[in-house]
Amino acid sequence: MSTYGTLFRVTTFGESHCASVGAIIDGCPPGLEISAQDIQIQLSRRRPGQSDLTTPRNEKDLVQLQSGLEMGVTLGTPIALLVRNEDQRPHDYTETDLYPRPSHADYTYLEKYGIKASSGGGRSSARETIGRVAAGAIAEKYLKLAYGIEIVAFVSSVGKVHLPAGMAPPSLSPINPDEEDDTAHDALSKDFVTLLGTISREEVDKHPTRCPHPETAERMTKRIIRAKNAQDSIGGTVTCVIRNIPSGLGEPVFDKFEASLAHAMLSIPATKAFEIGSGFRGTEVPGSQHNDPFVRDASGGLRTATNWSGGVQGGITNGENVYFRIGFKSPATISQAQETAQYDGTPGSLATRGRHDPCVVPRAVPIVEAMAAIVVMDQLLIQNSRKSAATLLPPITTLPPTMVLQKTLKVEQTPKDS
Amino acid sequence: MSTYGTLFRVTTFGESHCASVGAIIDGCPPGLEISAQDIQIQLSRRRPGQSDLTTPRNEKDLVQLQSGLEMGVTLGTPIALLVRNEDQRPHDYTETDLYPRPSHADYTYLEKYGIKASSGGGRSSARETIGRVAAGAIAEKYLKLAYGIEIVAFVSSVGKVHLPAGMAPPSLSPINPDEEDDTAHDALSKDFVTLLGTISREEVDKHPTRCPHPETAERMTKRIIRAKNAQDSIGGTVTCVIRNIPSGLGEPVFDKFEASLAHAMLSIPATKAFEIGSGFRGTEVPGSQHNDPFVRDASGGLRTATNWSGGVQGGITNGENVYFRIGFKSPATISQAQETAQYDGTPGSLATRGRHDPCVVPRAVPIVEAMAAIVVMDQLLIQNSRKSAATLLPPITTLPPTMVLQKTLKVEQTPKDS
Amino acid sequence: MSTYGTLFRVTTFGESHCASVGAIIDGCPPGLEISAQDIQIQLSRRRPGQSDLTTPRNEKDLVQLQSGLEMGVTLGTPIALLVRNEDQRPHDYTETDLYPRPSHADYTYLEKYGIKASSGGGRSSARETIGRVAAGAIAEKYLKLAYGIEIVAFVSSVGKVHLPAGMAPPSLSPINPDEEDDTAHDALSKDFVTLLGTISREEVDKHPTRCPHPETAERMTKRIIRAKNAQDSIGGTVTCVIRNIPSGLGEPVFDKFEASLAHAMLSIPATKAFEIGSGFRGTEVPGSQHNDPFVRDASGGLRTATNWSGGVQGGITNGENVYFRIGFKSPATISQAQETAQYDGTPGSLATRGRHDPCVVPRAVPIVEAMAAIVVMDQLLIQNSRKSAATLLPPITTLPPTMVLQKTLKVEQTPKDS
Amino acid sequence: MSTYGTLFRVTTFGESHCASVGAIIDGCPPGLEISAQDIQIQLSRRRPGQSDLTTPRNEKDLVQLQSGLEMGVTLGTPIALLVRNEDQRPHDYTETDLYPRPSHADYTYLEKYGIKASSGGGRSSARETIGRVAAGAIAEKYLKLAYGIEIVAFVSSVGKVHLPAGMAPPSLSPINPDEEDDTAHDALSKDFVTLLGTISREEVDKHPTRCPHPETAERMTKRIIRAKNAQDSIGGTVTCVIRNIPSGLGEPVFDKFEASLAHAMLSIPATKAFEIGSGFRGTEVPGSQHNDPFVRDASGGLRTATNWSGGVQGGITNGENVYFRIGFKSPATISQAQETAQYDGTPGSLATRGRHDPCVVPRAVPIVEAMAAIVVMDQLLIQNSRKSAATLLPPITTLPPTMVLQKTLKVEQTPKDS
Repeated sequence: MSTYGTLFRVTTFGESHCASVGAIIDGCPPGLEISAQDIQIQLSRRRPGQSDLTTPRNEKDLVQLQSGLEMGVTLGTPIALLVRNEDQRPHDYTETDLYPRPSHADYTYLEKYGIKASSGGGRSSARETIGRVAAGAIAEKYLKLAYGIEIVAFVSSVGKVHLPAGMAPPSLSPINPDEEDDTAHDALSKDFVTLLGTISREEVDKHPTRCPHPETAERMTKRIIRAKNAQDSIGGTVTCVIRNIPSGLGEPVFDKFEASLAHAMLSIPATKAFEIGSGFRGTEVPGSQHNDPFVRDASGGLRTATNWSGGVQGGITNGENVYFRIGFKSPATISQAQETAQYDGTPGSLATRGRHDPCVVPRAVPIVEAMAAIVVMDQLLIQNSRKSAATLLPPITTLPPTMVLQKTLKVEQTPKDS
Repeated sequence: MSTYGTLFRVTTFGESHCASVGAIIDGCPPGLEISAQDIQIQLSRRRPGQSDLTTPRNEKDLVQLQSGLEMGVTLGTPIALLVRNEDQRPHDYTETDLYPRPSHADYTYLEKYGIKASSGGGRSSARETIGRVAAGAIAEKYLKLAYGIEIVAFVSSVGKVHLPAGMAPPSLSPINPDEEDDTAHDALSKDFVTLLGTISREEVDKHPTRCPHPETAERMTKRIIRAKNAQDSIGGTVTCVIRNIPSGLGEPVFDKFEASLAHAMLSIPATKAFEIGSGFRGTEVPGSQHNDPFVRDASGGLRTATNWSGGVQGGITNGENVYFRIGFKSPATISQAQETAQYDGTPGSLATRGRHDPCVVPRAVPIVEAMAAIVVMDQLLIQNSRKSAATLLPPITTLPPTMVLQKTLKVEQTPKDS
Repeated sequence: MSTYGTLFRVTTFGESHCASVGAIIDGCPPGLEISAQDIQIQLSRRRPGQSDLTTPRNEKDLVQLQSGLEMGVTLGTPIALLVRNEDQRPHDYTETDLYPRPSHADYTYLEKYGIKASSGGGRSSARETIGRVAAGAIAEKYLKLAYGIEIVAFVSSVGKVHLPAGMAPPSLSPINPDEEDDTAHDALSKDFVTLLGTISREEVDKHPTRCPHPETAERMTKRIIRAKNAQDSIGGTVTCVIRNIPSGLGEPVFDKFEASLAHAMLSIPATKAFEIGSGFRGTEVPGSQHNDPFVRDASGGLRTATNWSGGVQGGITNGENVYFRIGFKSPATISQAQETAQYDGTPGSLATRGRHDPCVVPRAVPIVEAMAAIVVMDQLLIQNSRKSAATLLPPITTLPPTMVLQKTLKVEQTPKDS
Repeated sequence: MSTYGTLFRVTTFGESHCASVGAIIDGCPPGLEISAQDIQIQLSRRRPGQSDLTTPRNEKDLVQLQSGLEMGVTLGTPIALLVRNEDQRPHDYTETDLYPRPSHADYTYLEKYGIKASSGGGRSSARETIGRVAAGAIAEKYLKLAYGIEIVAFVSSVGKVHLPAGMAPPSLSPINPDEEDDTAHDALSKDFVTLLGTISREEVDKHPTRCPHPETAERMTKRIIRAKNAQDSIGGTVTCVIRNIPSGLGEPVFDKFEASLAHAMLSIPATKAFEIGSGFRGTEVPGSQHNDPFVRDASGGLRTATNWSGGVQGGITNGENVYFRIGFKSPATISQAQETAQYDGTPGSLATRGRHDPCVVPRAVPIVEAMAAIVVMDQLLIQNSRKSAATLLPPITTLPPTMVLQKTLKVEQTPKDS
């Protein structure tokens, strides 16, 4: 349904032609300073009309905070926010009233609800994600202030144009095709590891495609323009990294960290695929090479020498960078004519008028970041509850020392990032 | 946590060395005939010791039903079931007490809970999935009887050994690498579509690898034996199809069908990747070729001519076959020595003794089927509630006819599969 | 937290001095015709300034629908609505900044959140209930149209002024005080039963106290005026009946019908007590007199001859009228001086300025009705799902006929109230 | 359904004639030492056959722990436990197959599920509460060790036999009946306050009725024996106090502390009424007398001079003792003949054979304590999460100091009860 989360709960509302879209964010920690500007930054990265790679619709998407704050500080009560829909004109009845758009939600919304919004796909509209992005911005503010957590997403491919193998996520890196040869697996390249460790939003935003590799970004641009000119569309992938994330997040067995992350990511419109760490490529690498060995870190604790796991082991974060990749299909709404059938089965040709994104991945970047922040926030609140609770118990005396790690029972009392 | 589902709720319990593992299944429809044998079939497909490709541990895994049934018929009350752990011997303290196994859950469970089971990874044990498989068998029985739904999973790759391109899922099919050429996308091959439409569990079980292509199955066997002999391990992928699934399932915006499916699949141990329909490959195919056009079906309704969408559009099933692929990493526990560090940071070499699966995908097949059944069951119950509720309302008179589909408001009163 | 419900989910937001208050209603059946007026009627019954028995604050409380509807018909997607706060002026700092009001939420909100809204009790404001009342009006519209369900609440006592024993709820009726005498229990009077069966909102609204007995209403008025004149406050009870409610609602074991109802009612501000059916009085009546015997009803089914149970047995509705009573304490905010202590412990005298309700029960009537409607709606959707699911199964052949009631497996396809 | 709780989640299973009854407790803090004996103590206080006031059925109810512990210490993973049903003999078909027992769950279970267990009321059996009591014992152990929280319930009335007015809960204390006289409200007597502050389980268990006032206990015994001899039954009330409970518990607006408590209590079989603090009586007392003034406590903080509120204000605990009262109706199953109707409507006389409790309140005492512990535990975990989260934020500088209470943001690191 339209609510996500256990302790940090986001409930969104709104279609593309109603009065407004928005969200209620419940469970935000009290005492967090939040301004409309904190939220607006991400909304503006998501909004249409940013560049000639996106739909020419130009909506300001100004957020209006309704509740849960006083003098810019969260009260711990639900934060409601909304963004007015500027385009509420009565729908002009056209082909889309006769035809369900192929691979769009028109048909399935009608099958599900027995009724459809005049705009067709109801909540499958990209405008639905405004509430998510706003909620994510609030989560991010907390995560940054309290833990120094950084979340950065970027475009890793558009159509067949990928980041160069040397700096691409494992699944985009070719490996030795010889079935019998286990030796040469360098899919997790050093350049990619460096990219994950250093990439910033500023750098991502330098190019309208939000691909951090300038040369590839140029080729992506060409690919998108080619789709646009052909009244066609093209898909792509977004890769995201979460840095400074504490270990211990994820709730086995059903709400493992990667399970919650996959849930959140595949709830974003147009997504069809998710992988974490080495992902599908990792299935081809023998355990002896895929395992991430432990080493002592600077502070005397453990960390891993490699990170094929993507920061998650056994469904629980291990403190390394979490990284994952999401596949976005080519947008269903295209202007070129398609042979298809009307709702009543009559065959015909549909050419959808209107202003559409030829490729959604540049605008998907802040949505991916938002959903990542929401997942981390919710899992963090649950794990902190457990840690606090365990802290108050007397020391365990009946178990061998190797089975007990007293240090993890402490909830840290000072921000990591200060 | 350990509960999945809104109306069909599965709560599992158990580690590898405790008294038993099992589950409570709440919300099962009353009046369903279930026998222990219905459940045992799938448990036996999951259990270790089935062939020389799996761990030599040989546990019978006999299910004991505790509640919720009378004379073999469900009462609608919670069904509790358990399977005794045969191997409850006190853990012999070995290297695994000093070393967290690389890429295993030993370290992260300790970070999360501040305490660890002597068996190491606690609930990350494969035995945890017994409760899921049993719950899935109950869901499947209902889905089969009430809707004729069929769920079949099979092994689509082991290491670099894949099903032949012509009959493989889209992501495993090579496409024209020319970035500029959009024309030749035959990734969704006819043979694969046929395979999805006809594959049965009997056929899948003909070979111990559970790969339905005999020649590939042989190569997979060799690959697994090679890993076993090298005291190493290897990953793979499982592909699953859901047939006869009604349209209208999936709960936007956060519990879209594929989001719930991804959540469920990535909660299975050792999974790192999920894709539905054309998945990652679909991101490379232009919308004009990727869209599934509508055609009138035999009964006068609509269906799609192709199925790149994998049976889901806008997060809602469209009545076509749902198919998806899951990536399982190479098992972390291997017997060959690994250079790593002890809990206290001391570097050293760990060679894990014991009996381990060199490759989990053959045994993962019934687990994937079970989680798929649980997701479908839960979403079906929610959607049926909506349909029933809408049926009781007076006809909508104020909307244009194209916006209303009265037929979908009926809950069918007769099983599809009779 | 701020969300109630499993399938019919209400999430509210808003404090008394923020921009707006409101709610998101998720899971409303599609195809329901709803107008702002349907909602406004109940909001207006709740708003302040209705009579000289309530606070002189006069707010219009006009609802603004944001989403989930098109041309007045629900789409099945979330319905967001809000009511602007007219009184957003900056809080004038007064005694209430120094003193936590005794028995108000000022102190506990500060203890809980470590921060408090300038208005003091944050979400404990009566304005929070606006979202509930709006959501309830939507639920009621559905319940009326689809099932003919009628929900009517009324004031049964103010201070020590109660409905006359002959027509009062059981707990307000005196019984024979002789401990040894079990014989004379007429607490469930015929007049009360008649009242439950016939009372309408029109009748309730004839008097500003919302007490349906004119003479008692007059005495209640005097009691309230006396409290008002003394700068004091007084409590009271509200009794509510739900008519035409289907049997089978309630989800054992934790979400029994009365448990969910109690939860919902005691989430209303200022409530301290709940009882269903014979309530506390019923504990004094022997089983032989308290049990409700079955009789054949006109249609050949069963109903009960009496209704001490209040329409619920074993946590599940039996089709009889559900009735219950809720106790509202005397409002904490009073203008007369109170000896108490400041936040820092300094003793002193607090006389709260401002406009307060001397008695909340007349305005609580639509809030009680709203929460009742929300509970019924949610439970109904869950039970309908079960019924639909069971309907699709083959007939049960292995059980004796007395154990199976096929008729209950049918979801009725026509409204009861047509 | 059969799961209660957000972070501390209890899922129960089992009917009276199935193999076993029990529960899965998920979310228990790791590192808690628990023995079977900790649980058995409360199970034995609940079991039948304790005295001649209860059913002569004599079941040992020995708990079997299945998972979630190692060497007596919780791992943080789900704790499964079960108690075998000794009485699994095939149901002997008798009158109860023809007749639904009046006011029992036989009829409503059939209406709900369309099928009924041979034992009749399915999960309405008192044996269902075994899982709750076991879960509550675990929660209590934690609450006692970590916070010094004490939960004690006792019988406050049986039929018309009540605790003497001077030491009874407010609703059981008579007040001045003069409507015009507000002055003399001593319903919250000092003796009752003392009783709440000092009562222990040892004292409660001194008499089989579990009434702490010996003389009243004797009268209660006579009342129960009289019901038993008449083949009849009688109800009663249980009062419960929670001491040393932290302030700040309760989750507005829907999961206020008293709302969650009422939900939990009214989910216990045979309950019909709930009140907290002054309850229904409090509705008759003017605000000026009902408000609890603040005073500085020994440690410099605030507490209240009186406690009409029952430890909860605005839905949040204030640190004072929480006390509440629950009404249990007279048991429906009685042996004397009742004029009623068969399932098919045929009128007749039903005399239920078998062994029944003439009065359930003595055995209900540990069940009430268990549900109270479960509610406190769950709310505590949620509030601790909030506190931990707020602690990590930078100090709030933009708000006036009276709006911020930094001390509440600290999670205490040492047990209160040490």
